[in-house]
Amino acid sequence: MINGAAIRDLCRRAKSASRKLAIVDTKTKDRALVAMGKALIANAPYITGQNRKDLGLARRKGLSFALIDRLTLSDDRIRAMARSLSDMAGLRDPVGETIETRRRPNGLLIKKVRVPIGVILIIYESRPNVTSDCVGLCLKSSNGLILRGGSEAVNSNTAIFDVLNKEAVRCGLPRDSISLIRDTDRRIVDELLVQEGLIDLVIPRGGESLIKEVSKKSRIPVIKHYKGVCHTYVDEAADLKMAEEICYNAKVQRPGVCNAMETMLVHEKVAAKFLPDMVRRFREAGVEVRGCPATRRLAAGVKQASESDWYTEYLDLVLSVKVVGGVDEAVGHIMKYGSYHSDAIVTKNKKTAEKFLGEVDSACVYVNASTRFTDGAQFGKGAEMGISTDKIHARGPMGLEELTSYKYVVYGKGQIRR
Amino acid sequence: MINGAAIRDLCRRAKSASRKLAIVDTKTKDRALVAMGKALIANAPYITGQNRKDLGLARRKGLSFALIDRLTLSDDRIRAMARSLSDMAGLRDPVGETIETRRRPNGLLIKKVRVPIGVILIIYESRPNVTSDCVGLCLKSSNGLILRGGSEAVNSNTAIFDVLNKEAVRCGLPRDSISLIRDTDRRIVDELLVQEGLIDLVIPRGGESLIKEVSKKSRIPVIKHYKGVCHTYVDEAADLKMAEEICYNAKVQRPGVCNAMETMLVHEKVAAKFLPDMVRRFREAGVEVRGCPATRRLAAGVKQASESDWYTEYLDLVLSVKVVGGVDEAVGHIMKYGSYHSDAIVTKNKKTAEKFLGEVDSACVYVNASTRFTDGAQFGKGAEMGISTDKIHARGPMGLEELTSYKYVVYGKGQIRR
Repeated sequence: MINGAAIRDLCRRAKSASRKLAIVDTKTKDRALVAMGKALIANAPYITGQNRKDLGLARRKGLSFALIDRLTLSDDRIRAMARSLSDMAGLRDPVGETIETRRRPNGLLIKKVRVPIGVILIIYESRPNVTSDCVGLCLKSSNGLILRGGSEAVNSNTAIFDVLNKEAVRCGLPRDSISLIRDTDRRIVDELLVQEGLIDLVIPRGGESLIKEVSKKSRIPVIKHYKGVCHTYVDEAADLKMAEEICYNAKVQRPGVCNAMETMLVHEKVAAKFLPDMVRRFREAGVEVRGCPATRRLAAGVKQASESDWYTEYLDLVLSVKVVGGVDEAVGHIMKYGSYHSDAIVTKNKKTAEKFLGEVDSACVYVNASTRFTDGAQFGKGAEMGISTDKIHARGPMGLEELTSYKYVVYGKGQIRR
Repeated sequence: MINGAAIRDLCRRAKSASRKLAIVDTKTKDRALVAMGKALIANAPYITGQNRKDLGLARRKGLSFALIDRLTLSDDRIRAMARSLSDMAGLRDPVGETIETRRRPNGLLIKKVRVPIGVILIIYESRPNVTSDCVGLCLKSSNGLILRGGSEAVNSNTAIFDVLNKEAVRCGLPRDSISLIRDTDRRIVDELLVQEGLIDLVIPRGGESLIKEVSKKSRIPVIKHYKGVCHTYVDEAADLKMAEEICYNAKVQRPGVCNAMETMLVHEKVAAKFLPDMVRRFREAGVEVRGCPATRRLAAGVKQASESDWYTEYLDLVLSVKVVGGVDEAVGHIMKYGSYHSDAIVTKNKKTAEKFLGEVDSACVYVNASTRFTDGAQFGKGAEMGISTDKIHARGPMGLEELTSYKYVVYGKGQIRR
C-alpha cells in the first residue's frame, strides 16, 4: 500500500528546503560540490560494490548490452562523476543574475532576474551517474530535487545518493534539499505526479512507455527527455572520407547513448561509391546493418529493414540505412521517423546545408560533425540534467541556466497607471 | 456527439500551416498585421453589433459587473485592438534570431537560434480583445494558433476572427494558420488536449476550474494563466501619500483585471494614521472593504473579512485589508494566500524593499509602484498572450519572445567525438 501522506510530507519538506536553498550563497554551494566529489572518490569501493549487486541482477535478468553498459560503474566513471561535480563548482551561479534591464518612459526600472524553479522531480532509468549529475546541477542552481531512479539501479543510486547527501548536509546545505525514493513501486510515481504546488517540474528521462505515462498523469509541468533516433545524411556533395569518419563515430564510439546515430541516409548519387566500404567497416566493428533494397544491392551482408526499423532507437550496434533521392527526401524521412533530438548532414554545399539546418526541426542540427556532440559538457554547459526533446522551456542539453526561471523586479517612485 | 476525426484533421491542418508559416518573411507578416488592424476598424460596426448579442445574453444571465466590463467592445476598444496589431508590426521579429554563439575548443561553432514553438492552443474566457492580440502575436512569431474562447463571447470572437482570418489569407499568410473553435461543447477541449505531436503548447487563461481541468487532462505542455490575487504591502517606512495613490490606483482604476489589487496589507505602526482616510476614499469610490479586526477598529464601514476572502480574486470593487506586524508577516501572508502574480511593497527603506523583492516568489514584484503595470505593453513587449503564473518557459507578461523555442545549429569541419 502506498502511503500518500508520507509522500506529501516528503514533498512538503523538499519545498520548504528549496526556499532555504534559494538564498544559500554561491561559495557554500561550491564548497559543498567539491567536497561531494571527493566523497564519491573516497567511497568508490563501497559504490562499485553496490553497483555489482545491480549488475549481477541485470545479468541474471538477461538485460541487453546497452543497458548493462549504461549501468556499469568503474573507478574511472566514478572519477568522472566527481570531476563533473567539481567542474560545476567552477561554473557561474545562475541564481540572482540579471538577464535584462529595461527603463520605461514613465521611469519604471524593470529587471528580469534569474530565480530557481523550486522543486524538481526527475524520473530516470539505468545510468547511475545521472544521480550525481542531477544532484550537483540542482544544488548549484538552488533547486530542491526528488530522485526516482529505475529499479535496475537501485543499489547503485542509493549508494551514490547517501554519500552525496551526507556530505551536502555536512557542508551546510539545507537538509531535505535532495531526496531519493528507494521504493520502486510504480504507484509512488503516480502519487508524486499530482503534487502540484509542491513539485514545480517533472523531468522523465527514458523510453516511450515511461514518457507517455508521465505526460498523461502529471498535473505538474513536464519536460520530456525522450529517445534519440538520430540521423546522419550523407549528401551528394559530401566529402566522403569525412562522411565515413563522422558516421562511424556517431554509430560505434558509444552506441548505448541517445545521441548515437541510429539511421544513416545516403544520397543515391554517391551511394555506390560510399556504401560498400562504409558497410564493410561497420560490419568489421560488429554492427548489424539493416537496409532498404537499394542499400542491399550495393553492400554485402545487409539485412532487410522493416518499416518499424526507421522508428527504432537501437541503443546498440545496429544501424538502419536508406538511400534517398536528395536533401528533401532526407528531411522528410527525419521529420516522419525521427525523435527531434540530433540530426546531421555531411555536405560541402552551403545552400544544401542551410536548407537542412533550417528545415529539420530537431533540438540539435549539425553540418559536418558527429551527432555524438549533443551533450552538456561538449556544449560547454558543464554537466546536464539530460537532453530535452521538448520545445517548451528547455531544448537539447539542459544545464544550469535551463534549471532556472525568472521574475520581474520593478523599481518605482510612486508610479500609477493612467 | 464530438467528431474526433474532424478535430484531429483541424489540428493536422494547423500543424502543416505552421510549418509553412515558419518560413514566411518578416515583411509579409508585418504587412498582414497592419492590414488586419485596418480591417478591424473598417468592420467595427459589424463587430460591435455581434458584441451586443453577447452583451444582451450576458445581462439576461445576470453576469457580474466585472465580466460585463471585460466583454464589452466599444469603438475605442476596437481601435486599441487595431493599434496593438500595427504596433506588433513594428516589433522585432524573434524568429531566426541568434540568441548565443559559442566556439568550442575543438572548433565546433554552436549557434542557439530562435524558432517558433509550432501550434499553440489558447483556451480563454470573456475578453474578446484576447482574440486579436493572440492572433497577432502568434502570426508575428510564426506560430499556428487554435483559439477556444468562452461561450459568453462566441459572437464577438467569431466576428473578430472572421475579419482577421480573411485579411491574413488575403495578405499571403498560409490558410489554416489560425482557427477558431466555434462549437462551445466542453468535450471538444478534452479532445484537443490529447493531440500531442500536433499541438505543441496549451495556454489556459481563466478561473480555477478551467485551469485545473486543463492541467489534469492535457498531455501537451501547459502554461497556466491563472488568477491574480495581488497584494500591496504598506510598510512602516512608506511615504503614506504615495502609498495612498498606489493603493487607490491598484484597486480602482480597472478592478476587473488580473493585475488589480485584491488585498492591502498595512504595517501596524502606520495603520492608525493611514487606514481611516484610505478606507474613506475607497468607500467614496464605491469599494466594499472587508477587513481584519484591527482594520475594523481603525476605520469606519469595514465588514469582517472571512478566511476565504484572503484567497479571493474579486475582479470587482471589493478589497480585503489586513494589519500586519511587519514585512515578514506580509511576505508570509502573500506566499500563503497569493497566486504568485504581482505583489508590491511601498517603503522608503531599501533593505526592507530588497527583502520583500527577494522573498516574494511572484512573477512580478514591485517597490513603490502600482501592480497595474503587469502588462505586456506596459513592460515594453507590445501586446501579450496573457500573464503566466507558471515558472516554466514563461513567467509574467508573455510576449513575442516567450512564444519562441530555440534550436542549436552546429557547424563542423569533420569533428568526431573522442
